[in-house]
Amino acid sequence: MSVNFNNFFKPKRIVVIGASRNPRKVGHVIVKSIVDGGFEGEVIPVNKKADRILGKVSYRTVLDIPGDVDLGIISVPAPYVLNVVKECNKKGIKDILIVTAGFSEIGEKELEDALRNYVNKYKMRCIGVNCLGVYDAHNNLDTLFLPRYKLERPRAGGISFICQSGAVGSATLDLVASQGHKFAKFISYGNATQIDESDILEYLGQDEDTKVICMYIEGIKDGDKFFEIAKRVAKRKPVVVLKGGLSERGEKATMSHTGSLAGAKEVYFGVFKQAGLIRVDSLDEMFNIASMIGKGINLKGNRTHIITNGGGYGILTTDAVVDSKNLEMSEFSEKTAGDLRKKFSKNVNIANPLDLVADANTENYKTAIEACISDNNIDIIVVIVLYQTPMVGADVVEVISEARRKTDKPIVAVSTGGDFTKNLSMSLSETGVPVFGFPKDSIEAVDKLMWYELKKKKL
Amino acid sequence: MSVNFNNFFKPKRIVVIGASRNPRKVGHVIVKSIVDGGFEGEVIPVNKKADRILGKVSYRTVLDIPGDVDLGIISVPAPYVLNVVKECNKKGIKDILIVTAGFSEIGEKELEDALRNYVNKYKMRCIGVNCLGVYDAHNNLDTLFLPRYKLERPRAGGISFICQSGAVGSATLDLVASQGHKFAKFISYGNATQIDESDILEYLGQDEDTKVICMYIEGIKDGDKFFEIAKRVAKRKPVVVLKGGLSERGEKATMSHTGSLAGAKEVYFGVFKQAGLIRVDSLDEMFNIASMIGKGINLKGNRTHIITNGGGYGILTTDAVVDSKNLEMSEFSEKTAGDLRKKFSKNVNIANPLDLVADANTENYKTAIEACISDNNIDIIVVIVLYQTPMVGADVVEVISEARRKTDKPIVAVSTGGDFTKNLSMSLSETGVPVFGFPKDSIEAVDKLMWYELKKKKL
Repeated sequence: MSVNFNNFFKPKRIVVIGASRNPRKVGHVIVKSIVDGGFEGEVIPVNKKADRILGKVSYRTVLDIPGDVDLGIISVPAPYVLNVVKECNKKGIKDILIVTAGFSEIGEKELEDALRNYVNKYKMRCIGVNCLGVYDAHNNLDTLFLPRYKLERPRAGGISFICQSGAVGSATLDLVASQGHKFAKFISYGNATQIDESDILEYLGQDEDTKVICMYIEGIKDGDKFFEIAKRVAKRKPVVVLKGGLSERGEKATMSHTGSLAGAKEVYFGVFKQAGLIRVDSLDEMFNIASMIGKGINLKGNRTHIITNGGGYGILTTDAVVDSKNLEMSEFSEKTAGDLRKKFSKNVNIANPLDLVADANTENYKTAIEACISDNNIDIIVVIVLYQTPMVGADVVEVISEARRKTDKPIVAVSTGGDFTKNLSMSLSETGVPVFGFPKDSIEAVDKLMWYELKKKKL
Repeated sequence: MSVNFNNFFKPKRIVVIGASRNPRKVGHVIVKSIVDGGFEGEVIPVNKKADRILGKVSYRTVLDIPGDVDLGIISVPAPYVLNVVKECNKKGIKDILIVTAGFSEIGEKELEDALRNYVNKYKMRCIGVNCLGVYDAHNNLDTLFLPRYKLERPRAGGISFICQSGAVGSATLDLVASQGHKFAKFISYGNATQIDESDILEYLGQDEDTKVICMYIEGIKDGDKFFEIAKRVAKRKPVVVLKGGLSERGEKATMSHTGSLAGAKEVYFGVFKQAGLIRVDSLDEMFNIASMIGKGINLKGNRTHIITNGGGYGILTTDAVVDSKNLEMSEFSEKTAGDLRKKFSKNVNIANPLDLVADANTENYKTAIEACISDNNIDIIVVIVLYQTPMVGADVVEVISEARRKTDKPIVAVSTGGDFTKNLSMSLSETGVPVFGFPKDSIEAVDKLMWYELKKKKL
């Protein structure tokens, strides 16, 4: 039976127990994040001593608060958590999020067991312990206890991220926000005392805002449950997964991080593959793929054509396509080849890669991209633009994004460079074209998505 | 016999043949780059029609120029190149750099052969054809025909880059400049009509400004010569190599890019390994390693200790160390472990990774780093700092860079995030500490350098 997450993402009244007046304290930053995030409901601080926190009336306990409360966020020290949970239950707050650390991850197993037994017994729903909270860009809900000046929040979009580790979650959230990638929901679930990765995965599988799900997991509590849910979700939308604690040593570190058992690498990889999850080896790979999918790329075939103004980049991209498991190099139809031969000078070899050479201009790109779009022998178009060359203007961005609007054929771009390039890449990305920094990254991301598309048909 | 490159890097008078008044033309940008680059000698334009270019007196031919000229840069159309080279020879200019394309890379083999025969016969030295030119950050020489507003130039430092492809060279030069990495020399050599990758490698092996050599090569003209020189150079300093055109398809593309024969992958890999070259699979990996080496990292042993304020990052880094070929996880000595147990709360598990947990502050980092420095069981220190957490201040940058000044033990840092993080990473990097964006990148770079250090002893 799936968990109802409504109160975690669409609460009307939130109480923060352990709220603080000290700006460096977790209990302060949570209240501030909720307010600064533009939460439309009411946030109520609870503190043993303070009367007001961030201008809001503070109560001694949840029991002193008049009216119903939907969500309780708890950041009191570990020994007091169970008592606070009991008060929440008494108050009728069934949904709680516990950020407090100091449970099984440091050997305090009994403390965590008692908490689990209690929330289960009273049919409460609990995210945490030892977690960072949730962020929902569409509902303006931000409970993260990391200040906004240190951690930029991503804008509303299609990527959701389930993250066992708060640190991994926050650091990557910050990075991808600065790269302009767009998020739906972020959930850090820590020790998974009750609600676990599978529950969240199932929820996100049904969430309309979520177009692609990223997961960083250290351990899986219930393998059968995970497999069953993962397979069902992957049928519907892509799930990208990074597993931490693959080595025996990493496993030991996992035990003292979130108290999970990491388990054998091969077993995990087998489960991911069978369930149709896209497995990645690093965080940057994860968000390379996710942000591409978030832009609505739709792969129907695997024949890939490369357009470039840098010969070396064409070669490196070709190497990557040939090296890939699921992509192949396309060939122009005779008609396309004939047309292009008439349009380009003899310096341009009409082939794949189509090297427009260093004096390529915007018009050349337009001609090349349109030829690839209309050629039925081509499924995927990789457009490499090195803005450093003298004849390429900023208007090539408009040419590529116009092509993207006109066709269903997936177009991905590759550009490497400093500020001038980064600004143009950002503009292009904003129009819905995935832009990568290097040939290898782009092809590896497309390759893995292709694997998923083929796998999905067999799920 | 090694080629004398003095006139390519330290010329007093340069002539640009094919200089132009049109700012979008290659022959214009070259003159402008030389001037804007702060060249201390004289640059003289040659143009069939113009009297002045960029305010400088222009001549009809090189023969009209009074006095000696050290270097001739040629950017006239391919059919006129040989004639211009003859005029240079007549004028006594023995060193020429030809940027013009349109030779063997588009099938015009005879044109290129004739040119090669001529420069060889008259003992001229020729870089190019179909190349981008040279950049020397220490001597303020910049002949690149890519405008500075589009392509940032790196500051003076220890990385030199030999690049067959102009596009690969310029795009990455621009990127690494924006990342703050520092360069000695950059040489794009194109078709290698005469001077080839081996000649340049040999020269950079002796160049005092060059601390690490990066190479992007598509084909090698003379395998025996390359192997002999590469081995000799690698004994002295690290050489990082990326090979383009590894696949058969990539090979075809190479033929029409720089007219080189790419050759079998296995043969290349064997040669690189035997010669002690550090092989990389991508451009970002290349500069991850090179910039680390450029900072003077000195690996003496392989026992690696991880300090982190993010458990998940500790786990991912541990996985990467275990997965590496040449690194191993270190263990604290009993003394260090005992000392640290007294200094840290019970939330901190005294182990490797040393997870300072999310409320780690700058003082905790200081304690942890100093313990790793003084512990003889530890050779390499990986410091992960996630600045998003509330208690870590910007002053941790000072703690790490002070540690770097105090010890010979290699310290590398890992930080992921948006602008706040990037600014602090940049500050840290400026003090000579290599900073990586992700755990996997950092460990892979250290691992490959470790491989080199072990290999070097056997060369």
